[in-house]
Amino acid sequence: MSNIYSSAPSAYEYPLIIKQLLNRAKVVSQEQEIVYADKKRFTYTDLFARINRLANVLADLNLAAGDVVAVMDWDSHRYLESYFAVPMSQYILQTVNIRLSPEKVLYTINHARPKVLMLNSEFAPMVKDYQFENSSIEHIIWLDDDGVTVEGVFGESQSRVVGEYETLLEAAADTFDFPDFDENTIATTFYTSGTTGDPKGVFFSHRQLVLHTMAEAASLGMLPNKQGVSYGDVYMPMTPMFHVHAWGFPFTATMTGLKQVYPGRYAPDSLLDLIIDEKVSITHCVPTILQMVLGEAQSRDASFNGLKMIIGGSKLTEGLAKAALAQGIEVYTGYGMSETAPLISLTDFSLNEPELTEEEDITRRCMTGRPVLMVDAQVWSENNEPVGTGKEHTGELVLRAPWLTQSYLKNDDAGKELWENGYMHTQDIAYIQKDGYIKITDRLKDVIKSGGEWISSLEIETILSLHPAVSDVSVIGVQDKKWGERPLALIVLKPDCQDTQADDIKAIAEQAVTRGLIPKYGVPNDYKFVDDLPKTSVGKHDKKVMREMYADQTGV
Amino acid sequence: MSNIYSSAPSAYEYPLIIKQLLNRAKVVSQEQEIVYADKKRFTYTDLFARINRLANVLADLNLAAGDVVAVMDWDSHRYLESYFAVPMSQYILQTVNIRLSPEKVLYTINHARPKVLMLNSEFAPMVKDYQFENSSIEHIIWLDDDGVTVEGVFGESQSRVVGEYETLLEAAADTFDFPDFDENTIATTFYTSGTTGDPKGVFFSHRQLVLHTMAEAASLGMLPNKQGVSYGDVYMPMTPMFHVHAWGFPFTATMTGLKQVYPGRYAPDSLLDLIIDEKVSITHCVPTILQMVLGEAQSRDASFNGLKMIIGGSKLTEGLAKAALAQGIEVYTGYGMSETAPLISLTDFSLNEPELTEEEDITRRCMTGRPVLMVDAQVWSENNEPVGTGKEHTGELVLRAPWLTQSYLKNDDAGKELWENGYMHTQDIAYIQKDGYIKITDRLKDVIKSGGEWISSLEIETILSLHPAVSDVSVIGVQDKKWGERPLALIVLKPDCQDTQADDIKAIAEQAVTRGLIPKYGVPNDYKFVDDLPKTSVGKHDKKVMREMYADQTGV
Repeated sequence: MSNIYSSAPSAYEYPLIIKQLLNRAKVVSQEQEIVYADKKRFTYTDLFARINRLANVLADLNLAAGDVVAVMDWDSHRYLESYFAVPMSQYILQTVNIRLSPEKVLYTINHARPKVLMLNSEFAPMVKDYQFENSSIEHIIWLDDDGVTVEGVFGESQSRVVGEYETLLEAAADTFDFPDFDENTIATTFYTSGTTGDPKGVFFSHRQLVLHTMAEAASLGMLPNKQGVSYGDVYMPMTPMFHVHAWGFPFTATMTGLKQVYPGRYAPDSLLDLIIDEKVSITHCVPTILQMVLGEAQSRDASFNGLKMIIGGSKLTEGLAKAALAQGIEVYTGYGMSETAPLISLTDFSLNEPELTEEEDITRRCMTGRPVLMVDAQVWSENNEPVGTGKEHTGELVLRAPWLTQSYLKNDDAGKELWENGYMHTQDIAYIQKDGYIKITDRLKDVIKSGGEWISSLEIETILSLHPAVSDVSVIGVQDKKWGERPLALIVLKPDCQDTQADDIKAIAEQAVTRGLIPKYGVPNDYKFVDDLPKTSVGKHDKKVMREMYADQTGV
Repeated sequence: MSNIYSSAPSAYEYPLIIKQLLNRAKVVSQEQEIVYADKKRFTYTDLFARINRLANVLADLNLAAGDVVAVMDWDSHRYLESYFAVPMSQYILQTVNIRLSPEKVLYTINHARPKVLMLNSEFAPMVKDYQFENSSIEHIIWLDDDGVTVEGVFGESQSRVVGEYETLLEAAADTFDFPDFDENTIATTFYTSGTTGDPKGVFFSHRQLVLHTMAEAASLGMLPNKQGVSYGDVYMPMTPMFHVHAWGFPFTATMTGLKQVYPGRYAPDSLLDLIIDEKVSITHCVPTILQMVLGEAQSRDASFNGLKMIIGGSKLTEGLAKAALAQGIEVYTGYGMSETAPLISLTDFSLNEPELTEEEDITRRCMTGRPVLMVDAQVWSENNEPVGTGKEHTGELVLRAPWLTQSYLKNDDAGKELWENGYMHTQDIAYIQKDGYIKITDRLKDVIKSGGEWISSLEIETILSLHPAVSDVSVIGVQDKKWGERPLALIVLKPDCQDTQADDIKAIAEQAVTRGLIPKYGVPNDYKFVDDLPKTSVGKHDKKVMREMYADQTGV
């Protein structure tokens, strides 16, 4: 490139850093509202001042660029303020997953080594002992809504606590000159839930988060009003802010200047109250939370008035989608993971699209969605070659996008595996339809490789779960001399169906073969009746444990 | 920053280059349509193949990275293909403004020095002589819809022409492996219209265009369906593709996979035919084109069915906005310039917004709009200090955004001036309202500085134009010993009002003072009646010429 295209000496080389997300809102959204449960309510003008105040509080702690500031809090205005003030001050925000077991919470803190902990008094007992050990934490900022004092939890001698959040903010100046710096500076870190082994740390740069925010705004903006996001929407998270940046929405909502509602600890009655009272129009959650608020609404005979809700984390079932739609929720699927910041795909809707039957519409809402803008999604074979589109081309879903974690924190081996051959490996088995819809059929480690063919454990489970005697079912692969692996069905029978036989269950699988739903080699030969199935801390089937337990069960 | 946040060796460092805009559409929009007037119609799958074919055609010409490929064409599928194939091959696309005078067209070509010219046969006479001179052009690709042959224009001996576009594409392979490269590589260049002096070249990198595309998609997506852009919209440009990337829409529409219609040469009847037949739902143009299609529709008694139309380039007047709305056009304002790629601000609409009166609604649509996402817009005083918001704080509008030209091509002095003190100077005089709306009151060079106060020539012109005897009016500043400058009104009277006196005109200005519309010092003391006013090549009042003509006219 010839240097005739050189920049003027004082031309601004605009870095993609988080403070730039505020440019429009600062001018346009000054009077817009931020609401914290039934506790606090202020404007964006206040928000900007509070972000500056928090930056001044942190500046007084004499941290260095790159130091980690951890937060343990429910979804609050404080969390929102930390999303901006911490990275804008060139520190790294660690969002601590307080739903992990106490041991794993401490593991993640020991691993990321924050210098500052913003600690909600409710979680103080969890770190009470820890902090007196060989701790990285030099300063604790006390977050409290209930009048719980530091002394009440820690006793008198807790010198690490610098003060209570609101008191500190009030005492701080409301202007702060946030510097420009390299857009590749790390902004956030947090940990995968670690269902297998220790939690793994992912991390994201300012550039990655800014690009995620722009792509999320564009992708949701391109959906029709009924499903997407527009100026005038009211946002509330129902996926916690410690979990993958609450899907990036706090950044997106602030950039676009939406009214934002933060609900504190999730309880069905207060969530529903806030949805109704604050006119919340866009949210996101896992199916369990949807079920919870649906139940609450049914008991009150309340409607959601077209609340837009993106479901992720676990599969949205067609039954749940139908129930949600009936209650006035525009429910559909988003897909992503901790490693992907998280947005990768969304259910698509379009103006003037051809009319769908109710069944087609629900099927679409429950699929994995289509890749969002800028995402390069491919399906690869076991030898890392793209296999193209269509159901016949199933393989691992691999990704490129401008916002994928570039490795795992202090875990180079896992990072190398994640990025094998230059694409990020999701470990999800999927195919991509000709219309761009992704369909995830299994987790890579759960898929059963039988005679060179792949059997989706999820598909077989779905079929077997339709048998009226089955209360719960898991299908795992066990070693087989002839086929390599064969499926083993682990079945929990309903209390009043305890005399059901393996052949009864097998019959429904064979029927599914006849109807062309699964291949013949997908029918398990082996069925084991059990009292219950091992589960992980978050309530998912723990197939790793099952595989260990039943490693020798072939031909039972 | 500690190196514990290091990337995995094969992690993909996603560059913001134009080929990435295709990622989603490649998977999702394969069957979507591209239409070229009444001449051609194909799918996105074909478009991707054709982009690859064009890259192969260019590769055969043995160009080097950074070489310039110029295009002289009406809005066509060919132009769209060049928007992608040229920069994706690491060449620089020059979009030649064929509306300039032939001398200025040749100036811009001599200045940018393209190696390849993609030349519509209609414009061939314009460069017929040029190309035999000391020319940078080594290869001409012939674009033709009407069976005009190279020999017909150039005679027999034209060895520079490598072939006709469609024939070349057909002969080329439909796969091309577009490489990754530095996102700061220059992608496009074009020239300002140069109302004063020679046209100036601006230039944009891949990164800048990708960020402009994402921000444009997000900003238009955030508007409600009635005004914004959503999946399912149908796009057609009515601002030419040589003019600031047709406002970036061809990139945005392709990224989001919209149906696109390219109209060829603009003629009112064919534009209206295409809008109706192809169900065009989103477009953009200057007021003159709006007037043209409005007239056509009125003569046919046709409605536009809610066609969304963004007006820029010149001010949308309230009368024209009203007429457009009455005819079923959702008309509103966008603001930008060649230097800004161009999107800077847009009229804002919001879901559930408070009801506006018709007058308020039209006023809003005719303002300069609110800054779009990521744009940092400020008003500065003459000593380059931000003055804040409110009508009382008028000054020069200055900008930061991720997509502003970083200088002028081979014109460092002008580039330095453009970027004085680290913000891009628009040379527009404006204020920003407390609600974020920008109101441009004048061009910097046209504002009249009288006794330390600024007088908006536009405001005074608007007032004087309301006098029933006035056919056209321009107000310029002329030197004044006491006040520095004073306004001089140049008035063209209507044929049947030739006996109107200066005092008659002055009376309406004084009335405006009484009503608080303009300050007392804004009333011109001097009125000069003229037969007509000097105009630029694009029909705007040429105040530079007027200032020269009337430099000594104080106290006339």
